[in-house]
Amino acid sequence: MTIRLNCDIGESFGPWTMGDDQLLMPYVDMANIACGFHASDPLVMQRTVALAVEHEVKIGAHPGYPDLQGFGRRSMNCSADEIYAMVQYQVGALQAIAKAQGARVEYVKPHGAMYNDMTADERLFDAVLRAIADLGEGMRLVVLATEDNQQNREQARQHGVSLWFEGFADRAYDDNGRLRSRNRADAVYQYNQKILDQVEAFAKKRPISSINGEPLDITIDTLCVHGDNPKSVETVKAIRSLIDEINNESSE
Amino acid sequence: MTIRLNCDIGESFGPWTMGDDQLLMPYVDMANIACGFHASDPLVMQRTVALAVEHEVKIGAHPGYPDLQGFGRRSMNCSADEIYAMVQYQVGALQAIAKAQGARVEYVKPHGAMYNDMTADERLFDAVLRAIADLGEGMRLVVLATEDNQQNREQARQHGVSLWFEGFADRAYDDNGRLRSRNRADAVYQYNQKILDQVEAFAKKRPISSINGEPLDITIDTLCVHGDNPKSVETVKAIRSLIDEINNESSE
Amino acid sequence: MTIRLNCDIGESFGPWTMGDDQLLMPYVDMANIACGFHASDPLVMQRTVALAVEHEVKIGAHPGYPDLQGFGRRSMNCSADEIYAMVQYQVGALQAIAKAQGARVEYVKPHGAMYNDMTADERLFDAVLRAIADLGEGMRLVVLATEDNQQNREQARQHGVSLWFEGFADRAYDDNGRLRSRNRADAVYQYNQKILDQVEAFAKKRPISSINGEPLDITIDTLCVHGDNPKSVETVKAIRSLIDEINNESSE
Amino acid sequence: MTIRLNCDIGESFGPWTMGDDQLLMPYVDMANIACGFHASDPLVMQRTVALAVEHEVKIGAHPGYPDLQGFGRRSMNCSADEIYAMVQYQVGALQAIAKAQGARVEYVKPHGAMYNDMTADERLFDAVLRAIADLGEGMRLVVLATEDNQQNREQARQHGVSLWFEGFADRAYDDNGRLRSRNRADAVYQYNQKILDQVEAFAKKRPISSINGEPLDITIDTLCVHGDNPKSVETVKAIRSLIDEINNESSE
Repeated sequence: MTIRLNCDIGESFGPWTMGDDQLLMPYVDMANIACGFHASDPLVMQRTVALAVEHEVKIGAHPGYPDLQGFGRRSMNCSADEIYAMVQYQVGALQAIAKAQGARVEYVKPHGAMYNDMTADERLFDAVLRAIADLGEGMRLVVLATEDNQQNREQARQHGVSLWFEGFADRAYDDNGRLRSRNRADAVYQYNQKILDQVEAFAKKRPISSINGEPLDITIDTLCVHGDNPKSVETVKAIRSLIDEINNESSE
Repeated sequence: MTIRLNCDIGESFGPWTMGDDQLLMPYVDMANIACGFHASDPLVMQRTVALAVEHEVKIGAHPGYPDLQGFGRRSMNCSADEIYAMVQYQVGALQAIAKAQGARVEYVKPHGAMYNDMTADERLFDAVLRAIADLGEGMRLVVLATEDNQQNREQARQHGVSLWFEGFADRAYDDNGRLRSRNRADAVYQYNQKILDQVEAFAKKRPISSINGEPLDITIDTLCVHGDNPKSVETVKAIRSLIDEINNESSE
Repeated sequence: MTIRLNCDIGESFGPWTMGDDQLLMPYVDMANIACGFHASDPLVMQRTVALAVEHEVKIGAHPGYPDLQGFGRRSMNCSADEIYAMVQYQVGALQAIAKAQGARVEYVKPHGAMYNDMTADERLFDAVLRAIADLGEGMRLVVLATEDNQQNREQARQHGVSLWFEGFADRAYDDNGRLRSRNRADAVYQYNQKILDQVEAFAKKRPISSINGEPLDITIDTLCVHGDNPKSVETVKAIRSLIDEINNESSE
Repeated sequence: MTIRLNCDIGESFGPWTMGDDQLLMPYVDMANIACGFHASDPLVMQRTVALAVEHEVKIGAHPGYPDLQGFGRRSMNCSADEIYAMVQYQVGALQAIAKAQGARVEYVKPHGAMYNDMTADERLFDAVLRAIADLGEGMRLVVLATEDNQQNREQARQHGVSLWFEGFADRAYDDNGRLRSRNRADAVYQYNQKILDQVEAFAKKRPISSINGEPLDITIDTLCVHGDNPKSVETVKAIRSLIDEINNESSE
C-alpha cells in the first residue's frame, strides 16, 4: 500500500483566511479539517468539505482545544473526560456537515497541543480512542509513528480502533526516533532536497536519517505535509510528484 | 395521540449551573438539549443525554445563535447560509454525543432568537428545514402552532421534513392566535389555574382563550413547559399530572 | 483645520492576519484599533499601539459587538445598558495597553454593526456618549457626517462629548446625503478617479456629488479610508498625497 | 495593621449566576473582581463595581486565562508576552468600568491557574509585575505568603510594585509552608473551628499549624475567603466577627 499525504486544511475563521485550500486540496489524499474549536466555523467547514468531495480527498476530523486565540497550540490541562467529550462534539459536528454533502468522516487526527498531549499521556490517548470507538463508524485515528508502535497498537486494539501511523516530511527526527522539538532551530527542514530525501525513504520503506545521520526504522501509513504558505504549497507539489513516481515504479 | 411535554434542558455551562435537570427530567417527554452555542458544553451535553436516556425522554437538538453571553436571546443578523451551517454543526455535535450512548436525536427545536427569527422569516425557516432534510435522519422540526399552520406545513413538505407544532402552557395568546409579546406585562401567566386551564384545553383539543377571552382554535402536538426555577418545576409536575389524567380518561 | 485620514487597523486575531498594518500606518492620521470583541486580542492590540506610536498616529478605540466569527458585522439586538458597558470595557482595555506605552486613546469609533446601530437608534447613540463621557478623558466620538448634523451635535453636547464627523472616500452617497446601502452593487466606488474626486471635494470643503450627481453639502473632520488589501493601500497612498497637496496649497 | 479579607466576587456570566454577591460583599474588605476572560462580562463587572462602591470595599482586578468553559482553572501554556498583554487588557477594562463610577482599581490578583502558574514560574511572575508597573497607578499585587517571601519581595521591588501577601482561611498547609495540593482529600478544612483557629493565628501574627501540626511562621497582609455557597457565606461571617473582635482587643 502506498503512503498517503495528509494535510491540515480548512483553518480559516470568520473573516480571516489561512492558507490557500483551493490550491492545496488537489495535491493531498487526506484533509484534516478543523472543527471550530481552534479554527474554522460552520460555514468554513461546509466549504472545506465541498472542496474535499470535489477532489475526492478523504475527510478527517481535526479536533483541537477550545482556544481560537491560541490556535489550539497552547496545552490546556484538560481531564480525560473533557477530552472524550470535546472530541466527540467536534467529530460529530463535522460528520453532520459531511453527511449533508453525501460524504463521511473516515478518520480523526487531533490538532496541535491536543495531539502532543495525547502522544505524551496514555490516559488522554485512551480518551481519544474511546471517543472514536463509541461513535462506532470504524473511523481511524492518526498517531505519530515511532520505531516501536507496539504499545499504541495494543491500546488501540483493545478499543477496536485502527490506527494510521504518520511521519513528517519536513521535520527532523532525533536519534531516538522522536520528532525534534520545535524549540530547536534545526527542527524543521528548510531545503527541499532534505525533505524529498526523507519522503523517498519513507515511501520506499527504507530507514530515514536522524538529525545526526543515524538510521531510523520508522514505518508509516501517511505523511504529514504543510501548505500554509505559497512556498510550502510548492513543496507539497514536489512531494506529490515524487510519491506518484515511486508508486508508478513499484507497480510496474 | 397525546400531547407531549417539551422543555429546554441542559443549559448549564462550564462551572455555571442553570435549572435542576435531575429534578425536571422525570416529568417531561422531550428534552430540548442546548448544543454549546448559546449554552452548554460537550461535558454538559454528555450528562444531559445520559439523564434523558435514563428517563426515556426523547432527545432534541436545541441549536442557538453563537452568543453565550446573551444566551442566544439577542437576534443576530445571520444569513440563511450561516443558519443552515450552524444548525447542522450543532445537531451533528449532539448526534455524536447521543450515538455514543446508544441514543439518537429525534427532533430539532431552535432556541430563543433563532426560533423567533425562523418563525418570522421564511428564508430562515427554509434554511433550518434544508439543514434537517440534508441530514437525512427523519428528524422532526418543532415550530410554533397557530390557527393556520398550512403555510409552514407546505414549506416543510417540500423538504420532506415533518413538523411538530407546539403550544405554550404559560404564555398568553393575542386575539390573532400569536404569542403575546414578552414586552407586555401580561405575556406570561403567573397563576397555576390559568396555566392548567390552557393546558386542559390544548390536551382536550378544545379552543383555548386569548388574553381577551376570544376562542382560538390551535391544535398542537407538543406543549412547551419551563423548569428553570423551583416554582416552575412544581408547575411542570402539576401539568404532567393533568395531562396523564386526561390521557387516562380518554383511554378508558 | 485639515481633514484627517482614519482607518480600521489592528484587525488580526491570534494566528490570523488581516491587512498589512505596517504598510498602512505611515499614511493615516488616526488608527481605529480593534479591541478584542469583533477582532484583535491583547497581543495584537499591544503591537498595533506600538506601531501607531512609532508613526505618531492618533489612537482610537474601535469597539464592536462580541462576535468574532461575524467580525462585528452582524447586528445584535443589544440593550443600551449592554452597549454602555461593552464600550467602556473595550475602551478601557485599549487605554491600559496604550498607557503602558506612554500613549493615550484620543477618540472612540464603534465598529461595523454597532456603528450602524448607533447611527440609526438614538438610544444607542446616547449609551455610547454616556460611556465616553463617564470615562472623563475628553475622548472624541467619530460619527457619520450628513448634511445636517445638528441633532447629533446637540445630543453630544448634553453629555459634554465632542464629535468628529467623518465622510467616506470610497462610498457612494444617496441623494439624501446618506451612505448608499452596501446591498446596492454601486455602493462602493471602484475607480480611483471617482474616489479622488470625492476626497478633493471633501478636502476643499466643496459639495460632493451624490450617486445621481446631486450636490451634497457635507462637512467632515475626518475621512475614513480602507486598507485591507494591497490595492486599497495604493488608494490610501494616493488619497494621502492629494490631501497633503491640498493642505500645502491652502497654507501657501 | 489589621489583615483584610479578600474574596473572589462578580463571577456570574451572562444568564448564569454564581455565588450571592449581595450577601457576601458586606463582610469582605477586598473584592477580587473577575474581568471577563474566565468569568463575568461587562454588565456583571459594572454591577459588581457598584456593589463594592456601595459597601466601601476595595476593588481588585482578578484577571484569568481566556477560558470561560474551564473557569480559568485549566493551566494554559501561555508565553510571558501573552500573560503581560492579557493582564493589562483585563485590568484596563475593569479600570474603565470603575472610573465611570468614581472608583479605582487598587490591586491585582490573578485567578486560578494563572495565579498558580505565576507562583510557580518566575518568568510569569515577572510578566505580571511588569504589566502592573507599566500601568503606573501604584496598584498592588496579591501573592501567596510563604515562610520566606524574600525572593518575591525582591523581584517586585525591582519593578517598583508593592505586594500584599495572602494566606488562606480554609486551606491546609504542608510542613514546608506551601498550600496542600487540592488533589489531596484533606486539602480544604471542612470544620469551622479548624478554620477559625487558623484565622486567629494569622490575625494575631502567631505561627499557624501545618497539616501535621508543625508550626509555620507565615505573615500575611490579607486573608482569602470563599463565599460561593450559602454555607461558606456563614463561614465568612464568622471569620469577619473573629477578625473584628481581635482588632478591637488590640486597639484597646
